[in-house]
Amino acid sequence: MKSLTIVKIGGNIVDDVHETEHFLSLAAEYLQPCIIIHGGGKIATELSSKLGIATIMVEGRRITDKATLDIATMVYGGLVNKSLVAKLQALGINALGVTGADGNSILSEKRPVRDIDYGFVGDIIAVNAGFFLDCLDNALMPIVAPLTHDGKGTLLNTNADTIAAQLAIALAPHRDISLLYCFEKKGVLSDMNNEESVITELHEKYYRELVEQGHIHKGMKPKCDNAFMAKKHGVQSVAIVHARQAHRPQSGTTIII
Amino acid sequence: MKSLTIVKIGGNIVDDVHETEHFLSLAAEYLQPCIIIHGGGKIATELSSKLGIATIMVEGRRITDKATLDIATMVYGGLVNKSLVAKLQALGINALGVTGADGNSILSEKRPVRDIDYGFVGDIIAVNAGFFLDCLDNALMPIVAPLTHDGKGTLLNTNADTIAAQLAIALAPHRDISLLYCFEKKGVLSDMNNEESVITELHEKYYRELVEQGHIHKGMKPKCDNAFMAKKHGVQSVAIVHARQAHRPQSGTTIII
Repeated sequence: MKSLTIVKIGGNIVDDVHETEHFLSLAAEYLQPCIIIHGGGKIATELSSKLGIATIMVEGRRITDKATLDIATMVYGGLVNKSLVAKLQALGINALGVTGADGNSILSEKRPVRDIDYGFVGDIIAVNAGFFLDCLDNALMPIVAPLTHDGKGTLLNTNADTIAAQLAIALAPHRDISLLYCFEKKGVLSDMNNEESVITELHEKYYRELVEQGHIHKGMKPKCDNAFMAKKHGVQSVAIVHARQAHRPQSGTTIII
Repeated sequence: MKSLTIVKIGGNIVDDVHETEHFLSLAAEYLQPCIIIHGGGKIATELSSKLGIATIMVEGRRITDKATLDIATMVYGGLVNKSLVAKLQALGINALGVTGADGNSILSEKRPVRDIDYGFVGDIIAVNAGFFLDCLDNALMPIVAPLTHDGKGTLLNTNADTIAAQLAIALAPHRDISLLYCFEKKGVLSDMNNEESVITELHEKYYRELVEQGHIHKGMKPKCDNAFMAKKHGVQSVAIVHARQAHRPQSGTTIII
């Protein structure tokens, strides 16, 4: 089976032009063929603030009213996505920026209201594996913004970590996949206060213990949960690693089930 | 030769949700297969204004500094483009939103500074016909934002009328093309003050006379110049027509050389 790297790059990387360019040069040189999913970063929050639109976060998730959805569509689907595409083109990589609406690539449904109304937030229903495989067959590198659509004309804000996991799961029957969560730390840390305490192999049992003991940072938990979900659903290799080490995932945390 | 409709929809259509939806339903029902190029409309100007960024227009063209380019990327490449894509998906059309950077579809160069420095504005060098033909062969409908790239990592603001003409010219050897400029008037008017004075067939000689006599509205001239350029370069059929009559281009102005 052909290999494929699926990389999620975090908002803190996207926010930093030098980190972004360094990551993209690694992706261009070492990670082909590849699909990138990017987070949004602070730009959306800053733009909302300038426009007087309040940003509300609950459990690390942005509450998305219509104004905030429009900001996300502008910043994630427009500015961040197209800037990455243009930079990759300059590196000789034929990138294609998409949201889940483009090519009907990721269909979702508006998250049902239980305790919290997340607003225009989508839970993924279906990944169009054929679309991504066609892109790869045509030597196009998909760059995926954290937006999906409901098939009824509405875009929905969707967590980039979850998109990466679901994309990897959908493509695992077709490609030997290395799923990488790249961010600004060296991996999952056993001690939140020690940046060097990288857990090289994170077994699920140990992970559950760390969560129970409160040793997993609140932003890290959904990322790890997505990583374990991907691994359990047949994704061949899953790692959490510093963006500067994207070409050396063994330097970070490998997910083991 | 297979037929293909290439439609440019103006900013005044994009700004009006009802006109947009009406146009999209016509495109979905009558114009397939089709490529849509959209203008930007007032949203970019309004956003610039809210953010305190001055909009400078010279001869109907936006002067694009870096802040204005970012706004254009957000609004044209993000909000407008992805909203059109999501709405088309709801109509059962598998739309794919692109800028010229995506798939290296439209390469341009920063306009040389002569009398005016237009800033980050691109003049088209090459249209990647293969990319658009691959999309069409895969039953994808490209929705093109008025942004191109220089191949060196920079996006460039590019006139949507010109993109439509150049795209039609590049695809004319491969498809029997109907190029439509759709906007909020019924066609090219012989009397600017009479909305019913549509010129059914606009011959170039007559057009030059109208221009000399000052009868062509200043926003209409670049549109007509692009339309004549396309026709002269082998585009099979070129018309300027109301967006509500996109399925009946003979109701508007047909370009004759």
